[in-house]
Amino acid sequence: MVSARKISLVLSLLACACVTAVAQPSGTSERRQAPPDSDEQRIADLVLASRILVNEGVLDSFGHVTVRSLKNPTHYFMPRAMPPALVTANDIVELDADSVAVDPRAPRTNGERFIHGEIYKVRPDVQAVVHSHSLSVIPFSITPERPLRPVLHMAGFLPEKVAVFDHRSVSKDDPGLRGKLMVNNAKLGAALARTLGADSVVLIRGHGNAVVGASLPWAVMRAVYTQLNARVELEALALGHEVIYLNDDELKQHPVEVFDVERPWENFKARLPKSP
Amino acid sequence: MVSARKISLVLSLLACACVTAVAQPSGTSERRQAPPDSDEQRIADLVLASRILVNEGVLDSFGHVTVRSLKNPTHYFMPRAMPPALVTANDIVELDADSVAVDPRAPRTNGERFIHGEIYKVRPDVQAVVHSHSLSVIPFSITPERPLRPVLHMAGFLPEKVAVFDHRSVSKDDPGLRGKLMVNNAKLGAALARTLGADSVVLIRGHGNAVVGASLPWAVMRAVYTQLNARVELEALALGHEVIYLNDDELKQHPVEVFDVERPWENFKARLPKSP
Amino acid sequence: MVSARKISLVLSLLACACVTAVAQPSGTSERRQAPPDSDEQRIADLVLASRILVNEGVLDSFGHVTVRSLKNPTHYFMPRAMPPALVTANDIVELDADSVAVDPRAPRTNGERFIHGEIYKVRPDVQAVVHSHSLSVIPFSITPERPLRPVLHMAGFLPEKVAVFDHRSVSKDDPGLRGKLMVNNAKLGAALARTLGADSVVLIRGHGNAVVGASLPWAVMRAVYTQLNARVELEALALGHEVIYLNDDELKQHPVEVFDVERPWENFKARLPKSP
Amino acid sequence: MVSARKISLVLSLLACACVTAVAQPSGTSERRQAPPDSDEQRIADLVLASRILVNEGVLDSFGHVTVRSLKNPTHYFMPRAMPPALVTANDIVELDADSVAVDPRAPRTNGERFIHGEIYKVRPDVQAVVHSHSLSVIPFSITPERPLRPVLHMAGFLPEKVAVFDHRSVSKDDPGLRGKLMVNNAKLGAALARTLGADSVVLIRGHGNAVVGASLPWAVMRAVYTQLNARVELEALALGHEVIYLNDDELKQHPVEVFDVERPWENFKARLPKSP
Repeated sequence: MVSARKISLVLSLLACACVTAVAQPSGTSERRQAPPDSDEQRIADLVLASRILVNEGVLDSFGHVTVRSLKNPTHYFMPRAMPPALVTANDIVELDADSVAVDPRAPRTNGERFIHGEIYKVRPDVQAVVHSHSLSVIPFSITPERPLRPVLHMAGFLPEKVAVFDHRSVSKDDPGLRGKLMVNNAKLGAALARTLGADSVVLIRGHGNAVVGASLPWAVMRAVYTQLNARVELEALALGHEVIYLNDDELKQHPVEVFDVERPWENFKARLPKSP
Repeated sequence: MVSARKISLVLSLLACACVTAVAQPSGTSERRQAPPDSDEQRIADLVLASRILVNEGVLDSFGHVTVRSLKNPTHYFMPRAMPPALVTANDIVELDADSVAVDPRAPRTNGERFIHGEIYKVRPDVQAVVHSHSLSVIPFSITPERPLRPVLHMAGFLPEKVAVFDHRSVSKDDPGLRGKLMVNNAKLGAALARTLGADSVVLIRGHGNAVVGASLPWAVMRAVYTQLNARVELEALALGHEVIYLNDDELKQHPVEVFDVERPWENFKARLPKSP
Repeated sequence: MVSARKISLVLSLLACACVTAVAQPSGTSERRQAPPDSDEQRIADLVLASRILVNEGVLDSFGHVTVRSLKNPTHYFMPRAMPPALVTANDIVELDADSVAVDPRAPRTNGERFIHGEIYKVRPDVQAVVHSHSLSVIPFSITPERPLRPVLHMAGFLPEKVAVFDHRSVSKDDPGLRGKLMVNNAKLGAALARTLGADSVVLIRGHGNAVVGASLPWAVMRAVYTQLNARVELEALALGHEVIYLNDDELKQHPVEVFDVERPWENFKARLPKSP
Repeated sequence: MVSARKISLVLSLLACACVTAVAQPSGTSERRQAPPDSDEQRIADLVLASRILVNEGVLDSFGHVTVRSLKNPTHYFMPRAMPPALVTANDIVELDADSVAVDPRAPRTNGERFIHGEIYKVRPDVQAVVHSHSLSVIPFSITPERPLRPVLHMAGFLPEKVAVFDHRSVSKDDPGLRGKLMVNNAKLGAALARTLGADSVVLIRGHGNAVVGASLPWAVMRAVYTQLNARVELEALALGHEVIYLNDDELKQHPVEVFDVERPWENFKARLPKSP
């Protein structure tokens, strides 16, 4: 299983990397060109990603999405502590590798920024991270005998079983962390990043999940389809009989047949409510 | 069962064919006259169908609906690869019997166009095809012991058990197709069309479904009611006791008592959001 | 049980009748006065009821609500065959006791008008009838071992077990009715009215329900709360353990403690989308 | 368990009290300052709370939220009997410790005001009360073997098992109260307040719940997250295997790690529909 995961990671990275470079089949010049990458563009996309994830039901009053800095890849950009639906470019804060604001006068960011910071440290392939309380996913974080598993062809980026991070695995040996459901320090963030490993998604018990991607559109699309996969798996399991999951061949094939991530991104943007 | 299916098909075709020709009972002159059929009208309806299916929750960022050409019935019209919510008449591409664009400069269409092309080849009665990832339907595609079956009187167009297409039935003998969840070549499309047979709907395992009709309004209405039937069947099965399905008499009677397909079509149109 | 049902009916009628006549407790002069009753007012309310039931998710493209004529109480008013969301006062047709349009030039009404006509014949207390395909209710119509039962205090108008009408009970002795899921003749309508008996709601197997009331606001409120009761009962049963239903004392007490039906009616009106 | 509950109460009060007073970490001057407390501000917030709870799906045509008077802490403010979606400042009535309107000409308030009045009497820490028919919560009120329990980290304010008030516990010894599902007198209100005890939430069998808080934003946030916790617990239990609930350590830690209640409050306000 580990090897399948590793292969999946490698293929997935290749797939992501190819998105802009891939030669268009004849007669396809209409495929939207992604804008040139820059920190300005990443910040603009971060504002969009934040509003999209609210609109698609992934984020509520809490939760956050971040993006790695292109100029200084040990740093990342995060909105200040605020409802994600209301984020604008003025609310974005640059944090360093230790999740400390570069500008000492910067506004306060969310206490759980360590989820992002610790993942960026150990996953150089990751350019964007979503942490949400996506409701449809949480049931699978509290039922150890029923893991989240890929059933949807669109969710072939999921590992065979999505791992669940539980602070109890850390706090059992550290009385200072007992009962801490918030991942709001570096130790808990690093433990979560270890549970994620080379995967695309990790659940957080009774709390939510973290989803990573090679760009903001990838992380956003994965967060949305993780949620849809959870809903379908839940309904299928409720039928009380055998459920067919994606098999190893299918998980390996997924990044090869990778779909156009610009399509959900454009669609999600188009259905955003107009700004007030 | 095969014979019931065949009878159902024949009656269904008669029913569809009757929609515009049927004599109105006295006092019913208000029934909206369907506009005269033409490729221009079909393309206009295809744009509407695409937006309706998004608005009714059948299509998401992906999925597609097509219509056969009236002028050249081996050809069909399909939107280019794009989110179905955003389709306009300028995005429609004419494809030939091999699912190749007639105009070599035409924009790229969806890789899964073969679902449509291969069905049109073997089902001359079919004028329109919907391929969706309709979420409510997918659980029944991954639980072999719980098939999708008709429970709603509005879903009497469904066969007694809706068949499920799984690429594994093809790819087990063809290593080149291993793990291919996308129906994006003629061989897989033809196998799917064989699984559909004479029915109105076929599920695609872990992926979605394909729904056919004698016109765009019929295919759209069926796609919507397939989804509603799935929701009701799922909730009824969750009660954990015997469920009453439509019986053979009822399935045979359905196309005779056929309802006015213009009514959902007008209703679906009326509740579309205003174009921006 | 029969006697409890009868008591419930009598109390329910008293309760309904009291709504406008009841003396207001001191300090309550703000309670909205219902407008004086007339056929013009009933038709105006019928248009509202039709749109409200769509907006509350009870009616889809089909389904219909009717009201008895005040001037000629054997007659009733019904919209012509059309999507209920689009009904205006110009679409209302007066039908006689046999469900035949009074005006021979009147537009066609729905084939299932006999549901309404046959109930009005045998239930002089009933002033309004809703026939819907309310999705949440249908599972209980196809699972004989899991009847719809009152669990919500707002749904104390429901009988202890809601009866289910199935055409098979009639068609088994009448080959001409075999397979007929539509209640579109007087014989089936009369059989449905017998199954309803003195109750407020009857389910129709695999199809929907019929809900009656002493006024349009009562029938509308009951149709909405029947749906909500079904949703709660379904979720409670899914937990797989004993469920507490309203008991006989509570069902008897319900119409005595009757709430202000004008409140949901005003609320439902207030949240209607603005007319285009 | 009792002692855990008491500790939880004390910590919860501390946490609430700290919200405005807490020293801001450096770089966080943006945290919105709560406006100075006054009865005028409480009434303005009460109007907002009423509309927010409708918009978040907690209140329907019925249900009510109230706030204690700052000037006269034995009194409280409540909207007159009306749909909560339509409440304005002109609809607010001041009630005394016996739930009698201070102004004899005041409009009628809801018959169930005793839920609020009797809780304010025995819970000096409570400044606001929500009574709703929140649908997602009701299943847990009718399935004694499946109590509502905290599974979400955001719902750590819930007791280990949420108690259920059933009038039958009172009416079994008082024939005058038999069958009374409405909590519309002082005796039933006081019994409900005893069932609530020192907790934040009590369910009402087949009816809804009551949620309390140290301010309107706290009560509103808790009402919303009680509903979300119920949905997640219901879906997890439907999977039919062991479910992990928050443990004692986590429930004790919750109020220490208390999140910024202004964030959901601002978010809920921002997504209110514009007033007509």
